Amino acid sequence: MDNIRQLIQQIESLKTSLHQKDFLLTWEKNRNELELVLHVAETLRLMYEKNISTRCFDSGLAVSQFRDNSTRTRFSFAFAANLLGLEVQDMDEEKSQISHGETVRETANMISFMTEIIGIRDDIFLGAGHTYMKEVADSLDDGYQHGVLQQRPGIVNLQCDMDHPTQSMADLLHLKNTFGSFENLKGKKIAMTWAYSPSYGKPLSVPQGIISLMTRFGMDVSLAYPEGYGLIPEVVDIAQNNANTHGGSFEIVNSMEEAFKDADIVYPKSWAPFHVMEKRTQLLQHGEKEGLKSLEKECLVNNARFKNWECDAEKMKQTKRGEALYMHCLPADITGVSCAQGEVSADVFEKYRIATYKEAGYKPYVIAAMMLTNRFHDMPDLLNKIMDRKRERIMF
Amino acid sequence: MDNIRQLIQQIESLKTSLHQKDFLLTWEKNRNELELVLHVAETLRLMYEKNISTRCFDSGLAVSQFRDNSTRTRFSFAFAANLLGLEVQDMDEEKSQISHGETVRETANMISFMTEIIGIRDDIFLGAGHTYMKEVADSLDDGYQHGVLQQRPGIVNLQCDMDHPTQSMADLLHLKNTFGSFENLKGKKIAMTWAYSPSYGKPLSVPQGIISLMTRFGMDVSLAYPEGYGLIPEVVDIAQNNANTHGGSFEIVNSMEEAFKDADIVYPKSWAPFHVMEKRTQLLQHGEKEGLKSLEKECLVNNARFKNWECDAEKMKQTKRGEALYMHCLPADITGVSCAQGEVSADVFEKYRIATYKEAGYKPYVIAAMMLTNRFHDMPDLLNKIMDRKRERIMF
Amino acid sequence: MDNIRQLIQQIESLKTSLHQKDFLLTWEKNRNELELVLHVAETLRLMYEKNISTRCFDSGLAVSQFRDNSTRTRFSFAFAANLLGLEVQDMDEEKSQISHGETVRETANMISFMTEIIGIRDDIFLGAGHTYMKEVADSLDDGYQHGVLQQRPGIVNLQCDMDHPTQSMADLLHLKNTFGSFENLKGKKIAMTWAYSPSYGKPLSVPQGIISLMTRFGMDVSLAYPEGYGLIPEVVDIAQNNANTHGGSFEIVNSMEEAFKDADIVYPKSWAPFHVMEKRTQLLQHGEKEGLKSLEKECLVNNARFKNWECDAEKMKQTKRGEALYMHCLPADITGVSCAQGEVSADVFEKYRIATYKEAGYKPYVIAAMMLTNRFHDMPDLLNKIMDRKRERIMF
Repeated sequence: MDNIRQLIQQIESLKTSLHQKDFLLTWEKNRNELELVLHVAETLRLMYEKNISTRCFDSGLAVSQFRDNSTRTRFSFAFAANLLGLEVQDMDEEKSQISHGETVRETANMISFMTEIIGIRDDIFLGAGHTYMKEVADSLDDGYQHGVLQQRPGIVNLQCDMDHPTQSMADLLHLKNTFGSFENLKGKKIAMTWAYSPSYGKPLSVPQGIISLMTRFGMDVSLAYPEGYGLIPEVVDIAQNNANTHGGSFEIVNSMEEAFKDADIVYPKSWAPFHVMEKRTQLLQHGEKEGLKSLEKECLVNNARFKNWECDAEKMKQTKRGEALYMHCLPADITGVSCAQGEVSADVFEKYRIATYKEAGYKPYVIAAMMLTNRFHDMPDLLNKIMDRKRERIMF
Repeated sequence: MDNIRQLIQQIESLKTSLHQKDFLLTWEKNRNELELVLHVAETLRLMYEKNISTRCFDSGLAVSQFRDNSTRTRFSFAFAANLLGLEVQDMDEEKSQISHGETVRETANMISFMTEIIGIRDDIFLGAGHTYMKEVADSLDDGYQHGVLQQRPGIVNLQCDMDHPTQSMADLLHLKNTFGSFENLKGKKIAMTWAYSPSYGKPLSVPQGIISLMTRFGMDVSLAYPEGYGLIPEVVDIAQNNANTHGGSFEIVNSMEEAFKDADIVYPKSWAPFHVMEKRTQLLQHGEKEGLKSLEKECLVNNARFKNWECDAEKMKQTKRGEALYMHCLPADITGVSCAQGEVSADVFEKYRIATYKEAGYKPYVIAAMMLTNRFHDMPDLLNKIMDRKRERIMF
Repeated sequence: MDNIRQLIQQIESLKTSLHQKDFLLTWEKNRNELELVLHVAETLRLMYEKNISTRCFDSGLAVSQFRDNSTRTRFSFAFAANLLGLEVQDMDEEKSQISHGETVRETANMISFMTEIIGIRDDIFLGAGHTYMKEVADSLDDGYQHGVLQQRPGIVNLQCDMDHPTQSMADLLHLKNTFGSFENLKGKKIAMTWAYSPSYGKPLSVPQGIISLMTRFGMDVSLAYPEGYGLIPEVVDIAQNNANTHGGSFEIVNSMEEAFKDADIVYPKSWAPFHVMEKRTQLLQHGEKEGLKSLEKECLVNNARFKNWECDAEKMKQTKRGEALYMHCLPADITGVSCAQGEVSADVFEKYRIATYKEAGYKPYVIAAMMLTNRFHDMPDLLNKIMDRKRERIMF
């Protein structure tokens, strides 16, 4: 219990609040705001361990809108909402009247009358996901200002075309706990590298989220990909600027081996090249099935040239003492397990399997912290009250 | 808080109860019963504003069954249930064994063992929706009388072929608050008119709900549609009788302009002609795809003859001081926004957009009131107890 | 209230616990463990009747995974979870990333971070359902031991290829209450018989669940089916051994009439022959559509040879005093109601219809008892505390 009170004191010392601020992109938040979310996440985790109920709502909804499939994030969102006393209601566009020609402006208000939080995943169309979330945000502002809504729900980005903050923040918490402190992350080298996968069209949001966030904590970020597999230039610039400002470094290389050299952490993960995603977005928006097929074929052929971009035991030997921490947002394409040839060899994955599961285990708490900091102004006061009321999660 | 206690006194003076009475059609309820629902809805709304928890159930389910798509009503039902402490469980017929040849009688009981409320939308087949709800009601009576069910769940009509009471009651609350009181609605002219839409087969339940309900509050109801677009005769008779009894008036005209003349309120909305819906129902029930296609084609051609049935600025000028209140159940077919040519011009809709959102905002409270009045006998007592316990919705 | 305290004393006298033990197969549980579940189920039912809230969790999830359609069990699971304060989150494989090549080991952990109970229905593939549940169980053990999970969720079998324990236990409770006591079941004859249905491929888990469970309570179990419609040999052996050990009897006959003779209870229900299910499983796993079609055709032709295996008034006359209790897990194939010719004649079904609904009504409480006994060590203590706190389910 002392741990928890200490964490609350740390939160108090941050002297910041995310009250009524949507969580869309980590680079829109300052350092204290990021730490606020992470400390609240850890506090909630400790409270859960100690069977302390963190229910803060007697009623209220958390609406999710998934425009792409999801297991981990869907369940993490549900865990988080339930932990705080909110009921999840999924906005399933197939069962709605949206096809009817309804505007975003309208739908955003209609699903918000008694809603505290809206979580959105929209990562398929490049240039669309973040824009969509901003449009929802503006619509909610408009509805709230005009008295349509009695409260203005907060928005949590559950993955867009630009960023995947619930993932990168959970990853950061995993790193902090693995290496002991934020301080210890300074000067650590993380290799965020492309890896081969027998699929194509995977979002760019994970590598973008990692390079833009870890450069803010003084880490040496090495981004590696085969020529032509670049990320959105705007986000690469953000990573470079962060490195300049926060005392770390940022480099782009075209070899997995080079990135792995002396790395403390490796994060090998497939993604589609930026320019392919642009083309794919256009084809999808115009419903050009033939074009999509030939694009897929072309991409898979191109991908196949880089099958050696696999994280295997040999490459791991080049990392710091041969013992770098392997990370993945899951599910990984594991050679011989989930596909014939993939992002990581079975032996490497197995060695770090439990670690990746623990990495994933931070996400529910990170999302809950994003929800809670959005709804309450004074976090230390709230958390102290939760401690004081001594309400059990599992009763008796 | 004084407002709330005053409302509770008004409810007390109604000396009526809807305990254990399904809410299927407004014309089955007397005036005091309707006011009971509306006053309870307003009380719940004020309590929400004041952060007073209205949770009345520590466990219990609210089952929804949507036989047609829905956004607004689906979310309104979820809001309402959650506000009272009930968890929504959707009866998704695709995931059930109903195709197995199971009877309504059986399914109704199987989904009701611990259910407080069943909400049903069944508006596609003319002659079927209301009949289905009655069959569910009879099955629940049977199960409760024979000891199958430990409680008899209440049924709330979320739109059938005859009526759309959660919509019309929310609309009435919007009118009351816009014009100040029920008393002020007397002698006000409301134009419930057909409007052009590039689709066909829209239910008749909204116009039917409006003409049958507003005639009970002394309003002058003008129903307008192109020749051949009539409503179910039985409901039209109800509207006429209501007008005769309650001191208002009811007329049918064949011109949008005529209906709009000096109107205080206009409600332009597309629907399919009664006789088309009958034909469509038969074709759907027999799975005659060719017949449906040719019916649709025929109807769209016919609709297209009435593209001038659009609510535009020119027609709005003919209303009382050119300032009639525009209403819509949403989503509206807005010319140049959600379709090339539709029910309402973009400028008129934009002027009243926020008002239509507010109109929609009453629905969650109306549904919650229908739920609550069904489950509790003594509303004033219940509401006073909710006030007295001082439980917060958002804690701390 | 005295009834409830007496039941709690009976539970105390069992001196057993199912804490942290998955409920997969009834034959893995000893007699006291089975009675524990049934007594807790009855206690919860009485508490519900007396408006005593049995909410034990302030937050927590109950995850369901249905790999086959379900109405009754889906709703029973939702009722049970809600009764205890758990929110249901459905693991819909179509909306997840499982197709991505994700392993069971991984998914099991990802959906369990804040989960108390996982309910699984997996009854389509012979040899697969139970195996899958064991794999989930092992994965959860692994995750819990390695600190991935902060608690180890319990698993409840909602129907597999071997057993259907929530059904057979609800059936047993129905029998106990119909005949007065477990003691009274000794020497009662139950005819578990195949019956004709115009479909094929129905699971074997219900007849297997019945013959393996009822033989443990000293009943005389007569299993009847047309030649070639045998059950999984392993489970038949269990039934025979149970009969030998517990003082009842077990026989297999090839005539419905013979099984019905002097029976106290009849349970006529269609199922697919064991060897057909084996073949079907192979074809399904290899996606052989043509093979599946011809198998279905062949089976339906074969089934049609046994249309006289219908439970009708004539056959019922042969039962004890012509008044045997008719049972069914529902939905039944009722001749002239849900199909032209089926498992039971309309008059027989109608006579026992309410009884079968009551039979189904035990399932939510049986599932809730399986959940509760899994999560709490000391049932009498828990149930007494629930009584003592005097918390109402419907407030005020």
